[in-house]
Amino acid sequence: MRIASLSDFLLQRIDRGGKAGTPRKAVNRQIYQVIREAILDQSLPAGLQLPSSRYLALELGVSRNTVTYAYDQLLAEGFLESRMGAGTFVADTEPERIAAAATPDRAGATPERDAGQRIHTGLSARGSQLVGLAGVGETQWGAFMPGVPDVTQFPNRIWSRLQNKYWRRSRADLLTYSCGGGYLPLREAIADYLRVARSVNCDASQILITTGIHQSIDLVARMVCDHGDHAWVEDPCYWGTRSVLRSVGVHTVAIPVDGEGMQLPLEDSRHPPRLIVATPSHQYPLGMVMSLARRRALLEYAAAHKAWIVEDDYDSEFRYGSRPIASLQGLDAHDRVLYLGTFSKTLFPGLRIGYLVVPGTLAESFATGLSELYRCGHTYTQAILTDFMTEGHFASHIRRMRLVYAERLRLLREAISFHFGDRIILTGGEAGLHLALGLPDHCDDIALCHAAGKEGIVVRPLSRYYLRPETARRGLMLGYGSVPDERIRPAFDILASVIKAHWPEWQAQAGRGVPALEPALG
Amino acid sequence: MRIASLSDFLLQRIDRGGKAGTPRKAVNRQIYQVIREAILDQSLPAGLQLPSSRYLALELGVSRNTVTYAYDQLLAEGFLESRMGAGTFVADTEPERIAAAATPDRAGATPERDAGQRIHTGLSARGSQLVGLAGVGETQWGAFMPGVPDVTQFPNRIWSRLQNKYWRRSRADLLTYSCGGGYLPLREAIADYLRVARSVNCDASQILITTGIHQSIDLVARMVCDHGDHAWVEDPCYWGTRSVLRSVGVHTVAIPVDGEGMQLPLEDSRHPPRLIVATPSHQYPLGMVMSLARRRALLEYAAAHKAWIVEDDYDSEFRYGSRPIASLQGLDAHDRVLYLGTFSKTLFPGLRIGYLVVPGTLAESFATGLSELYRCGHTYTQAILTDFMTEGHFASHIRRMRLVYAERLRLLREAISFHFGDRIILTGGEAGLHLALGLPDHCDDIALCHAAGKEGIVVRPLSRYYLRPETARRGLMLGYGSVPDERIRPAFDILASVIKAHWPEWQAQAGRGVPALEPALG
Repeated sequence: MRIASLSDFLLQRIDRGGKAGTPRKAVNRQIYQVIREAILDQSLPAGLQLPSSRYLALELGVSRNTVTYAYDQLLAEGFLESRMGAGTFVADTEPERIAAAATPDRAGATPERDAGQRIHTGLSARGSQLVGLAGVGETQWGAFMPGVPDVTQFPNRIWSRLQNKYWRRSRADLLTYSCGGGYLPLREAIADYLRVARSVNCDASQILITTGIHQSIDLVARMVCDHGDHAWVEDPCYWGTRSVLRSVGVHTVAIPVDGEGMQLPLEDSRHPPRLIVATPSHQYPLGMVMSLARRRALLEYAAAHKAWIVEDDYDSEFRYGSRPIASLQGLDAHDRVLYLGTFSKTLFPGLRIGYLVVPGTLAESFATGLSELYRCGHTYTQAILTDFMTEGHFASHIRRMRLVYAERLRLLREAISFHFGDRIILTGGEAGLHLALGLPDHCDDIALCHAAGKEGIVVRPLSRYYLRPETARRGLMLGYGSVPDERIRPAFDILASVIKAHWPEWQAQAGRGVPALEPALG
Repeated sequence: MRIASLSDFLLQRIDRGGKAGTPRKAVNRQIYQVIREAILDQSLPAGLQLPSSRYLALELGVSRNTVTYAYDQLLAEGFLESRMGAGTFVADTEPERIAAAATPDRAGATPERDAGQRIHTGLSARGSQLVGLAGVGETQWGAFMPGVPDVTQFPNRIWSRLQNKYWRRSRADLLTYSCGGGYLPLREAIADYLRVARSVNCDASQILITTGIHQSIDLVARMVCDHGDHAWVEDPCYWGTRSVLRSVGVHTVAIPVDGEGMQLPLEDSRHPPRLIVATPSHQYPLGMVMSLARRRALLEYAAAHKAWIVEDDYDSEFRYGSRPIASLQGLDAHDRVLYLGTFSKTLFPGLRIGYLVVPGTLAESFATGLSELYRCGHTYTQAILTDFMTEGHFASHIRRMRLVYAERLRLLREAISFHFGDRIILTGGEAGLHLALGLPDHCDDIALCHAAGKEGIVVRPLSRYYLRPETARRGLMLGYGSVPDERIRPAFDILASVIKAHWPEWQAQAGRGVPALEPALG
């Protein structure tokens, strides 16, 4: 699609708020993002001249600063280029986009190259990229926010009782800075849990208590990667992984996934990565399980090339109808796996407690690095969590929630089936807290999510999780964990009508079946 | 001093534990650190051949792996070099050490250069440097741990009451992920506080809630600095500042301090820094206040060169006997200051809540960066803290603790005076929670602290806070905040005898006065 009028194109896609309950993004960021997407999908082709910021501001009815901010960001990141006396043009980024798998992805390639232009915004090139490509949403609750458990079912009273026990008397060791890998009794409780529930080979000395997956990845990236090192990440992957890695100078190399998980380009050993980040138990966001053959190949490759593997095991406590998948770490005979987990999904995200299991040889260095970089604390919370685990509340909360989520998944599937029959492909529904719902390639999933947001439905576009825009599949990430049973059908009814409105063939082809995404998502 | 026998030298300095109550560092790290210090102070001169790891292990009575680990780290960092077939030698690092002010300091200069050697430890060059130069201690409580408030005086009951109020009913918004800059009512309470107490110009939209000074500096470094950018830091400075900056690829340039604070090399504008980190209200660790002339010069320099200033205002709530010093941020007419504060000193460190105040133009980007990088939460704790502040408990706790700390400072000064009269120079005692006690240049403050540790006294060597070892002054950092009144004198009595034992002239010159550190520390 070529865009005839940039201002019309923007007017259709920019939300200037007004509607209650829909927190909006700042208009300057929206302009930035819409133009960026349009450049990436070539709706705005290289060489096209953009209207002046003054003209565009008038057309959009916004202040000129708002437009200038967006233009400056895009200039700083190399999406636009300014030609002296002539105006602002879409830059030619095509050659870089052709370089595909096993080369650093476009956006992460050279954060420094535009350092000269960063004066515009006051941010560094990496800061500007971080904001421009941010994956975090401005809403963190509601149907169908993915990746969020039902925090209203958390056993407050039990937690509160344990909390009061610790607060009754002051214990200096729980209130001051922590050091080493965290509160030892908690590390012991986690090691016990992981050995049994996830077949992780570890003892307490290998466990580090972090504030969650982000801090764990950040620590790993700084401890084992230098600036310019390559990390293989699944494509699509979790936005946090790529943002954290890039912000510490690690180049993310997009590795495609298929039905067996990450498709390692094992024949290419010219540029072995320093790090390989994978979600073997439940690929994020698509949900497939990495096959045993792939697991073995991955472990062998890492051992042979001295690469470290990060196993992000973010939500595999919740698996419905099939046996839990054992961890990759448990298979590893060469101590190459760094295993990541979190209590964000099993208890509540605001707790900010996660853990990192490292090989014994790295344990002491990682513990020092953790204290040195983050100056940790929260030991009183770690003590409460220890009791929560050792008294059995953790295990029983997981058991209870597994039933709750299984029922919600059933209700959501039923709602989807009611509206779309089998004409829509779902993946990821064997475990976790979300489903990925596939849409045809020409469906604009970003516009769809935007429209859904206006109806009060939080939903994330699948294409945003891809590193290489040219291979991005369209679809929706639907979280069901936090949606009360009785809210699932009504919320999906609203979403279904938005989906149908953004699916041009829907009306025409109704009853005939719509081309689906089997090969890519299966 | 030349070292005759490396094994004897190490045996004298390595603690293999055994004594109760003195947590010890792993022997491999101790060996690493002792050798590193000796190379830096030239006790082990360049070109000297080291004993083989097998021989040294035998002499020390440790496993060979223990020695190999230390050697490998030192090789990876370039302190040692391995000559094929000949053995291991002290590397010639002299030329780099001569480059002084306004050039990146030695250790931070080129973290990548040894990337080829990092296979030894499995760590990256930056990870290895982080561990090798770690400033964090393994003990965080006890006389005279610096930088720690008396957490036993925290009003538990009030906190517990507020906590129970929030835990009684589940509020999903407090338990899930947070987004933006943190809990808005807390940002408002902090803005109100800072405007009045610290003369900071701000409103709530400019406040970002972080987990403390470390996260604040980390966010700033990634948002406004790229890899290879220069940051000016005071020399001496807080170890956390330099470790965090280096770990994200920012070169730390050591700027000396004198009685007026940071001595800006303003005439040198060939390499303006991207960032200038200062502690204007209470220089860390020496304690002087930056003069107004210097403040103005710093602000002008930053405005002219588009540098960002980080004002680390870590403990200026506690100022005794003189008026509080207004913030540098409040003087700034050009929006170049990023202001950092924390509740670690005013409430308790384990709380992990700090704040960052940024210019309005950066606020939105920083809020996005904060959520994107760290995936924040802890909103329930932020809500409790809000009530604690708005109900007046925060202000009254500070008032009460100011009296407590003033009395402890008096007791500590009295104890020092009893043992040393006026023959020892003290600085930093007008504010905060610690004193810096100066020692003659040939006193080995590291060995002294080590010996004090064996007597159960936690104390930190001043020389460790310097970036340029050749200018490091010797002394002790004495925290008095967390030491009960009645414990101060007995603890200092023990420390005094350790000091005297490490001060060769003490006995000889007793009564005549010992050369002091006036110019450097004053």
